[in-house]
Amino acid sequence: MTLEVGVLGYRFIGTAHANAMARLPMFFPDAPEIERSVLVGRDEDALTEAADRLGFASISTDWGEVVDDVDVFYNLGPNHVHREPSVAALEAGTPVFCEKPLAPTLEGANVMTEAAHAAGDDVPAGCAFNYRFVPAIRYAKRLLEDGDLGDPRHVRGRYLQDWLVDPEVPWSWRTDADLAGSGALGDLGAHTVDLLRFLVGSDDLAGEIERVSGHLKTFVDERPVEGEAETRPVTVDDAYSAQLEFENGAMGTIEASRFATGHKNDHTIEIHGSDGSLRFSLERLNELEVLREGDRGYETILVTDEDDPYVDHWWPPGHVLGWEHTFVHENYEFLSAVANGQEFEPNFDDGLAAQQVLDAIERSDDRGAWVSP
Amino acid sequence: MTLEVGVLGYRFIGTAHANAMARLPMFFPDAPEIERSVLVGRDEDALTEAADRLGFASISTDWGEVVDDVDVFYNLGPNHVHREPSVAALEAGTPVFCEKPLAPTLEGANVMTEAAHAAGDDVPAGCAFNYRFVPAIRYAKRLLEDGDLGDPRHVRGRYLQDWLVDPEVPWSWRTDADLAGSGALGDLGAHTVDLLRFLVGSDDLAGEIERVSGHLKTFVDERPVEGEAETRPVTVDDAYSAQLEFENGAMGTIEASRFATGHKNDHTIEIHGSDGSLRFSLERLNELEVLREGDRGYETILVTDEDDPYVDHWWPPGHVLGWEHTFVHENYEFLSAVANGQEFEPNFDDGLAAQQVLDAIERSDDRGAWVSP
Amino acid sequence: MTLEVGVLGYRFIGTAHANAMARLPMFFPDAPEIERSVLVGRDEDALTEAADRLGFASISTDWGEVVDDVDVFYNLGPNHVHREPSVAALEAGTPVFCEKPLAPTLEGANVMTEAAHAAGDDVPAGCAFNYRFVPAIRYAKRLLEDGDLGDPRHVRGRYLQDWLVDPEVPWSWRTDADLAGSGALGDLGAHTVDLLRFLVGSDDLAGEIERVSGHLKTFVDERPVEGEAETRPVTVDDAYSAQLEFENGAMGTIEASRFATGHKNDHTIEIHGSDGSLRFSLERLNELEVLREGDRGYETILVTDEDDPYVDHWWPPGHVLGWEHTFVHENYEFLSAVANGQEFEPNFDDGLAAQQVLDAIERSDDRGAWVSP
Amino acid sequence: MTLEVGVLGYRFIGTAHANAMARLPMFFPDAPEIERSVLVGRDEDALTEAADRLGFASISTDWGEVVDDVDVFYNLGPNHVHREPSVAALEAGTPVFCEKPLAPTLEGANVMTEAAHAAGDDVPAGCAFNYRFVPAIRYAKRLLEDGDLGDPRHVRGRYLQDWLVDPEVPWSWRTDADLAGSGALGDLGAHTVDLLRFLVGSDDLAGEIERVSGHLKTFVDERPVEGEAETRPVTVDDAYSAQLEFENGAMGTIEASRFATGHKNDHTIEIHGSDGSLRFSLERLNELEVLREGDRGYETILVTDEDDPYVDHWWPPGHVLGWEHTFVHENYEFLSAVANGQEFEPNFDDGLAAQQVLDAIERSDDRGAWVSP
Repeated sequence: MTLEVGVLGYRFIGTAHANAMARLPMFFPDAPEIERSVLVGRDEDALTEAADRLGFASISTDWGEVVDDVDVFYNLGPNHVHREPSVAALEAGTPVFCEKPLAPTLEGANVMTEAAHAAGDDVPAGCAFNYRFVPAIRYAKRLLEDGDLGDPRHVRGRYLQDWLVDPEVPWSWRTDADLAGSGALGDLGAHTVDLLRFLVGSDDLAGEIERVSGHLKTFVDERPVEGEAETRPVTVDDAYSAQLEFENGAMGTIEASRFATGHKNDHTIEIHGSDGSLRFSLERLNELEVLREGDRGYETILVTDEDDPYVDHWWPPGHVLGWEHTFVHENYEFLSAVANGQEFEPNFDDGLAAQQVLDAIERSDDRGAWVSP
Repeated sequence: MTLEVGVLGYRFIGTAHANAMARLPMFFPDAPEIERSVLVGRDEDALTEAADRLGFASISTDWGEVVDDVDVFYNLGPNHVHREPSVAALEAGTPVFCEKPLAPTLEGANVMTEAAHAAGDDVPAGCAFNYRFVPAIRYAKRLLEDGDLGDPRHVRGRYLQDWLVDPEVPWSWRTDADLAGSGALGDLGAHTVDLLRFLVGSDDLAGEIERVSGHLKTFVDERPVEGEAETRPVTVDDAYSAQLEFENGAMGTIEASRFATGHKNDHTIEIHGSDGSLRFSLERLNELEVLREGDRGYETILVTDEDDPYVDHWWPPGHVLGWEHTFVHENYEFLSAVANGQEFEPNFDDGLAAQQVLDAIERSDDRGAWVSP
Repeated sequence: MTLEVGVLGYRFIGTAHANAMARLPMFFPDAPEIERSVLVGRDEDALTEAADRLGFASISTDWGEVVDDVDVFYNLGPNHVHREPSVAALEAGTPVFCEKPLAPTLEGANVMTEAAHAAGDDVPAGCAFNYRFVPAIRYAKRLLEDGDLGDPRHVRGRYLQDWLVDPEVPWSWRTDADLAGSGALGDLGAHTVDLLRFLVGSDDLAGEIERVSGHLKTFVDERPVEGEAETRPVTVDDAYSAQLEFENGAMGTIEASRFATGHKNDHTIEIHGSDGSLRFSLERLNELEVLREGDRGYETILVTDEDDPYVDHWWPPGHVLGWEHTFVHENYEFLSAVANGQEFEPNFDDGLAAQQVLDAIERSDDRGAWVSP
Repeated sequence: MTLEVGVLGYRFIGTAHANAMARLPMFFPDAPEIERSVLVGRDEDALTEAADRLGFASISTDWGEVVDDVDVFYNLGPNHVHREPSVAALEAGTPVFCEKPLAPTLEGANVMTEAAHAAGDDVPAGCAFNYRFVPAIRYAKRLLEDGDLGDPRHVRGRYLQDWLVDPEVPWSWRTDADLAGSGALGDLGAHTVDLLRFLVGSDDLAGEIERVSGHLKTFVDERPVEGEAETRPVTVDDAYSAQLEFENGAMGTIEASRFATGHKNDHTIEIHGSDGSLRFSLERLNELEVLREGDRGYETILVTDEDDPYVDHWWPPGHVLGWEHTFVHENYEFLSAVANGQEFEPNFDDGLAAQQVLDAIERSDDRGAWVSP
């Protein structure tokens, strides 16, 4: 059986998923057979061009029809478009793969998660936190779960970009609260929160995030509208930071910025446990720095050996992978779950859990006090 | 005229200052002439041995007598011993060089600072924040003051050690609230707060720290007493973190830990400005990473050129300095100020300002809310 | 018109090229249309499986038939199979893309290059030195050609692997002189020599390599045959080093090893010019370290900006590429050249030039004296 | 008994040794008591100033008198002054500590070594290769001798400076063959050759260097004379490289340059053994990168723990040492050997052995062929 996939969204992230699907047969021959069936959007000309380039069989400007027809629905649109089509698809019993953050608001995330629960366990509802699928991150999780680092004490996450440093960079949906929900917090912080939950969120390690103290900041209050004389207000954060306390006593600091001059896509994770430490940086995503009990310094591991996660599907040791491979891995796992009617993680519960933390960070910033997610 | 110097304290930090004084004639020939006159402590045998090794002419177990007799008084004892002898010296018109943090409590720091003001401008009262005297840090300050990095947006400071990870490490004055005031916060955080104030604290840059949100944590609640069967409670923090907001709008995160497995003395500073960024790490103290306008990445600068701060006193380019050189530089500046009856910075005002931030971090942690220093 | 491509070889490198061809339509929409038409090999079962996985329309065990039938012929077999099919294809007027090193012997490379010349300029004969197509390497070439680094003085290249450290690793065609020509020298050194020629080989820079002093070494003289009780002699080098002198006076050292414990695929290039320096490492292939006139240290550049070579075809800044992307770039350039009847570089002349240097290194090692290529 | 030390030379290296001697009592209390007795040179005014600054009791312009009078003689003058005073001192039974390279020519080094042998074992004749006394280098030697890295296969050494890149840098004794012997080869290469001999020169490891292939280059043929209108020819090498073969089969490449743009004092050593690898860089001299059997990457070790070589004399873990500390360590060892009438290494035999390799590199460059030291 071939799974017919409908995809809403065809820009940056849409291309990343289309590419991922296209590469499965050559590198993951046991992945289910799929057809890139229909590409969904509003602008017919742009859609036609994109469908041709990305290898889709047809286009549609009406997601309402699509969610019923296809075997799987990918929701890769802007944040404010995540809710309705995803819920409709789930109500139709169609598995959904939705980009992060799950929704601009906690309320939206709740509604979506309820829809996922209502659809049942055999209708996977995945939230596309692709960084869980970096081989080095999977390897890190293995170390943590095996207890190699002991009890987590300190956790740090940082996602630095600089594309808004120039005040002349134009307004976009990403700088608008109604369309995006939040700024760096939702766009980047969602990734950080999910990675920390993935790595140390189990009860045996640090557990869930129990309380947070948040700080949001908008450095430039209004931005020009592209091609127009007017400006529009920036209604989201340019940067956020937060302090965390985990259930089992670990403490953390996380932050993200679109104003970190010189940093393009610099997502770093650091963990100190009672027996060891680790460091990861997305800009060197093939590497993991690990310090185990008895070590005197960090070992810089190139996570490209045959028995490293997913690596046997690709190239010999030392032949590095890129950012896009994370999408191939997550598409493989998600589509396999769909084909087998099995659960997939990260799912909407994970998307909601991240959203709850982001929401708590915003509430904490409002109140000037610690709050619980 | 030869300045007679009396020094209270002769262990780790006492040695660092004695060594610094001993090296001035060879490398800073224009430094005032001094005599390591009297070494002050409680244990006569240990004192005698230390005075011999560190080159002091005499010993005393009574600081009360010393502070009057000498031309300069160094207070290098544990935190709870900072207040009384320093105040007595200042009341006697004797310049004081006191280790950080200025005092275990804000009240103590206030009293000491008042004594410094009462003594007058020609009686320098220095607070020995030695990391201001790292050549790379001075070079960083120059860049910031010249506006090369623009307006600071993000500031980060982190001081990581791991000597308490093992729960069997014994109790000491450093783990006791009455003797030390606080733990990682006062011991390490004082350095971080002072460096940030030094680097971006001017009105043209980020200004002073306006409000903080703090988080303190003690991972191990009691520790064995060395050589005894009993344990004693740990009454200070093992680690702290804080979020900062500066007067001019910059945001910051700082933290320190004695539980950062694998890190021995890892003090890092990072700043992102509107035009550039910089990074510094104490474990590679000869280096500064700088990204200026138009650069595409950080430039790793070895700050050992002839025209770099203090470097012309030492060796040719590329011949690296060590941790102890910071003490030589600060002793040179402090003793020169004493000899010339001039002001020295960092002074007790700076020590107090740091203490106010540390105190605010503790208060914030207590209340679970942002507070102002 | 669709170009029908025939490919000999379907293992590691065959997959890299098949993947590259498969990705062109989505990321290089102006690439010529191609069909992966026929996959050539000896073992029908393995061929059938590979053709299915790699997306080929048919298979053949007779390259003699294929080279005539197809529009383009890729020769990706072991070194000793490079010569005959490539020459046959060129004689049939079929463009050829041949893996490196061009041939196991200089004589073979000469014959192949003559065949390429005889076929004429509109029949591209490419030698697949894929590392010329790393964006950071192209960017480095731009800097060198713009004169940003001045006159090259020192050139270094090093290609380190460790897969033969264990003496129990079995004998293979790669350790046999008749089948492979040479060992680390041909397999890895060919890449290094080509990159140096690409980067500094123009007359304006260092020019061609004028003389060499070589050193070859075999650490383990015989190896077990897989699945058999016997051993066979290792008749190629496990490692080589060479000193170089360039036409314009620059000096160089290059080396490669299969015995560099801990290094998997570590190809590094370093150049010091009269005005600046650069460093590149394949294991961090998205980065280039550059020191320009007036700089005090190397700037670590992430070569993923929109205007960096080939990057606009892929992802936004900071989203790193992997090893395999170099194949997509070279396939794009080669197939475009074929479609347009234009020249492609690196061509067989480049393959021969590299082979001449490798041959000189071997001759030098034999004689214990410097020789000219 | 106090050892009276006479020192010839008071500039850069003279200061390094004077400082080292001055620091012994505080940090190496078991070092023999010494007096910086007499400073020797030609210019009385400069001598007087230097003796005052460096703490010498007297001056002399006649080394002939001094070598008899003192208990120990330090020869820290330019290379061409090494021979005569050192031989005279040894003939007088006075222990000698001579800077490297031992002599400008092999003949000079031979004569000096014969004088050392004639003086007998209880008259130490040390050659001041200070980099043997870097804690990280001692630690590396320990690993190698314990067999942690197995049999050395590859050895690399590189000493990069850039102070001659500008052709306007004036002529000096360092660019003249009669006064210096050679250029980068003798000045920098001597250090590299000695470190390799120290680390892997024992019979159990790689053994001595058996044959070499050398390459010398002078990029700028004449230089202006400071303060004069004329230029003088540069008669030494600006850079050299060499390939090495060791007795036990290891291969090596070494090089040095005064034309490595951007590098100030960058001495690096790399070793790959059958079981592990290591890397060291002088500009980060507190660090050693080590890969042991079973490791997947290099561990970056900060060699500042209490049980690391010499570290217990200094500061707590993580408080880094500088370049000058190597002189304190070697002075401690040398003066202790003098006081105890024991042998000291590196001695004149080591100086001669290094000189033999340097001489072989020059002869090899002349002949264009491999030669044996």
